[in-house]
Amino acid sequence: MENVLRANRAFYDAFEDYDIDLMQEVWSDADYSRCTHPGWKTMYGWTAIRQGWEGIFSGPVRMKFDLRNVEADIIGDIAVVSLTEEIVSVGAAGTDRYMVVASNVFERKVDRWSMILHHGSAYSLPETSPRFN
Amino acid sequence: MENVLRANRAFYDAFEDYDIDLMQEVWSDADYSRCTHPGWKTMYGWTAIRQGWEGIFSGPVRMKFDLRNVEADIIGDIAVVSLTEEIVSVGAAGTDRYMVVASNVFERKVDRWSMILHHGSAYSLPETSPRFN
Repeated sequence: MENVLRANRAFYDAFEDYDIDLMQEVWSDADYSRCTHPGWKTMYGWTAIRQGWEGIFSGPVRMKFDLRNVEADIIGDIAVVSLTEEIVSVGAAGTDRYMVVASNVFERKVDRWSMILHHGSAYSLPETSPRFN
Repeated sequence: MENVLRANRAFYDAFEDYDIDLMQEVWSDADYSRCTHPGWKTMYGWTAIRQGWEGIFSGPVRMKFDLRNVEADIIGDIAVVSLTEEIVSVGAAGTDRYMVVASNVFERKVDRWSMILHHGSAYSLPETSPRFN
């Protein structure tokens, strides 16, 4: 379980650092990998997912994640992690805070856990808060 | 794969019929089951998930689902299905149409596939459209 939580944290470290190489290490390069950011359509396969990250990482906004309510379970060779992301984002419009709930699924490889699914969605956003996307 | 798609469709049939017994048949009763509706926090375990469905099913809104972009993969004893839900909802305020992207994960049991994760999120909602929740 410790390795699952480490893989999960590595995902957010790569996100915070806007580091596409670290992000690529976190993800499985399988065609069945899929990623859904809040407000986005689902992207299939690492090639499309990587393009999504490159788009996010090329933008001016920087984000920090506090992870809450982390629930991790291993089911055979799959691990499912659900959590709440408390996000502080800093961009041209100033600082914003919001919450995202995420489902992260990892596949067990020989020596590591690789992400095969990330699905995030906003919740309880005050009306005055900008949408995440 | 046919059985996975059948289990996936059974989930939406139970949703359309507002049938809590059919919904219970679709889901695993495991503690590690989790469900995130658009705009909601994540619910853990079938007991909490069932309460969520009972709340939805006790409301006045009825929904019909057309499933688009269905991408299903079997990874060991887990199946992952991603798709777009084209929803027509009918309630006191009239008819509304909107799109939700969903990640559905099923666990292989001896003779069937049981849902262990549903995560839905809205996308591309026009500003004038009501939020799903």
